[in-house]
Amino acid sequence: MNAEVDVRNAVRAQGERARDAACVLARSDDRARCAALAAMARALRAHADRVIEANARDVADARAEGVSESLVDRLLLNPERIEDAVRSLGELAALPDPVGRVLEARTLASGARMERISVPLGVVAVVYEARPNVTVDAAGICVRSGNAALLRGGGLAVRTNVAIAALLRAALVEVGLPASCVEYVDAPGREAAEEMMRLRGLVDVLVPRGGRSLIDTCVRTSTVPVIETGTGNCHVYVHTSADPAMALGIVLNAKCRRYGVCNAAETLLVDEACASEVLPAIAGELAVRGVTLHADELALPLAAGAGATCLPADEHDWKREYLAPHLAVRVVSGLDEAVEHIRRFGTRHSECIVAQDEAASAEFCARVDAAAVYVNVSTAFTDGGQFGLGAEVGISTQKLHVRGPFSCEGLVSYKYVVRGEGQVRP
Amino acid sequence: MNAEVDVRNAVRAQGERARDAACVLARSDDRARCAALAAMARALRAHADRVIEANARDVADARAEGVSESLVDRLLLNPERIEDAVRSLGELAALPDPVGRVLEARTLASGARMERISVPLGVVAVVYEARPNVTVDAAGICVRSGNAALLRGGGLAVRTNVAIAALLRAALVEVGLPASCVEYVDAPGREAAEEMMRLRGLVDVLVPRGGRSLIDTCVRTSTVPVIETGTGNCHVYVHTSADPAMALGIVLNAKCRRYGVCNAAETLLVDEACASEVLPAIAGELAVRGVTLHADELALPLAAGAGATCLPADEHDWKREYLAPHLAVRVVSGLDEAVEHIRRFGTRHSECIVAQDEAASAEFCARVDAAAVYVNVSTAFTDGGQFGLGAEVGISTQKLHVRGPFSCEGLVSYKYVVRGEGQVRP
Repeated sequence: MNAEVDVRNAVRAQGERARDAACVLARSDDRARCAALAAMARALRAHADRVIEANARDVADARAEGVSESLVDRLLLNPERIEDAVRSLGELAALPDPVGRVLEARTLASGARMERISVPLGVVAVVYEARPNVTVDAAGICVRSGNAALLRGGGLAVRTNVAIAALLRAALVEVGLPASCVEYVDAPGREAAEEMMRLRGLVDVLVPRGGRSLIDTCVRTSTVPVIETGTGNCHVYVHTSADPAMALGIVLNAKCRRYGVCNAAETLLVDEACASEVLPAIAGELAVRGVTLHADELALPLAAGAGATCLPADEHDWKREYLAPHLAVRVVSGLDEAVEHIRRFGTRHSECIVAQDEAASAEFCARVDAAAVYVNVSTAFTDGGQFGLGAEVGISTQKLHVRGPFSCEGLVSYKYVVRGEGQVRP
Repeated sequence: MNAEVDVRNAVRAQGERARDAACVLARSDDRARCAALAAMARALRAHADRVIEANARDVADARAEGVSESLVDRLLLNPERIEDAVRSLGELAALPDPVGRVLEARTLASGARMERISVPLGVVAVVYEARPNVTVDAAGICVRSGNAALLRGGGLAVRTNVAIAALLRAALVEVGLPASCVEYVDAPGREAAEEMMRLRGLVDVLVPRGGRSLIDTCVRTSTVPVIETGTGNCHVYVHTSADPAMALGIVLNAKCRRYGVCNAAETLLVDEACASEVLPAIAGELAVRGVTLHADELALPLAAGAGATCLPADEHDWKREYLAPHLAVRVVSGLDEAVEHIRRFGTRHSECIVAQDEAASAEFCARVDAAAVYVNVSTAFTDGGQFGLGAEVGISTQKLHVRGPFSCEGLVSYKYVVRGEGQVRP
């Protein structure tokens, strides 16, 4: 019990230090923040050995615990991956300064002059899984946008993350900024994460990056505003007017490019009118790639006939984010049913229509409520880098504040500054 | 227990109807939405008698319950106030359409064309006190911005609000939109409000308008994203360089224009170097207006000497939002102490510096973290109408999504629409 209280107090103290650092950062200029990113990059490159050594111990422990190789791969850092992180810091420094912009200026009826100016959010907390590159990206994005970062990655990566944070903090001090612009919460256990969610007044926004259960816990527990990210039950809808070869290419890319990512397609919807023409070819190619299909009763014979491994689908399948070589398949009567299916089961992440008919695709774009709606383009493009935003904090699936992939520009707010000569309101 | 379940189910059913209506609204065009506002205005004007009759019964009940006259005044509607509400709908219709704007357009590296387009949030829930004009304003702002409104006002106003909602819903149907674009939750008891806070997946944002306890309940209970509004512990800081007459005018206006509003000043901070010159005059005029001062030990003799009713202030006073003829007064050593005081006790609403020294005011603007920072202007201007936004949903004191007074423009999100010819990601 005392240990629990100690953890909570320690996390709160980190929140307070981050808040103090945020006040300093808010007054820093663009040059200082870019200098900080450059120093962070130099420190990572110069002392990559420390990070790799810590990472080797994390990886050894993870393997000893029997963690799956795909998770170990996410955890693993090597010189190449550290170089990627360093490059990402350089790209962030090259982005335009999101802070201090005059977004609006006007003279009020009283003669007072009003400006709306972009300002950092303050303290940004990010809770994520055992992917150490996120530590670098999140710290870099926060500092670039004038925010202090309160970070907590998965327990498997704790040594790696502590080593990274130590380098980043030393780099901040080197350029005259407080070390606490980056606070890494290394206390173990659920209490530490829960306390982060309750630092109301110290933390301005909490971004959970991870699976649905992490995000649901944050939404339920947090008294700090949350930006929900990442759950993607994405659909590809093949309209009657689709070019069959294009449909095949998009489905294969959206499903098979990477299975474990939130922008991967999880359900294929095919118009009844073109199902017998389109579906066997798609099912055949998916079979070659080892994808199991969960098909409704109309799709099942077409897919099975093409040699695919098929299971009968039920409503449970329409809801699943497989993140694996599985794809739900449903034959729909047309656009209305497809839109209704997406409305019921989608997670508002990325949705695609394959269609040559422009009226159909325009209607799909207007009616489907998602962060990204694609016409004849793979859902795999929903990504900060692909959207030209640089490294991303996450992909927001909510509609408040930011939607879709977001980076520095998503971590600012604004303030109104009103100047006058004694104006009072009648 | 069963009654409680019934209430929850009824509220959820309203949420579902609002969600369906939001889908229709999202596809409506600007003309239809403006026609709806016009029909709502006509209906209110044509059937004002029904609203006034319902209101008279609410007012009679409130008086019978011994409700204070200031609350009764907020509850009361008369032909003039209804005409104000009608005018406010007309002003909303005149605002530019916030929906369907292309906020950004670019061609991605793959050749696909991306647009970022403003879209309604979807369903906006507003929980407020017994002020029936909010029912009209909130419904109008939501419909103007393409959102369905799920509304719940204070129990004292339930007959009035039900009568207003009936008129607004009939008006919506008259122009071919679903009645459920406006759903009024008239079920009594805490369960109804709580259920509104838990309509995750149906409601996109919850805006509590009211006192701190309502807002705190929403933040703790809600699983829907919340926009916090309204708690204002606002400060006026009189810098050494201030023009004394200007300082007097601003303090009187910020404190005494209206006591019960969130943009009223609650604490006066005065630089030590000018306190003996400035404070007696201010205290004397506040005394004339019946304002009690809660003064620290340096301010107390100066204020008392000028004839003001004074009580010694403690830390509790620095935190209070009096919403009454009371003002905390503290003498500070200078800008640093003033900024630190505001940082510790302020609610990030509206903060004012009175100063002729431009370096001092620039530093105040940069360091004070609030929705609105004023230089030589009264805090009373923090208001949607004064800021040129028209009727406001509320005044956000958080930094996520919107800050300060917000209206239609604060109730939109965006979606990315990406069009191509079969682009896949390597």
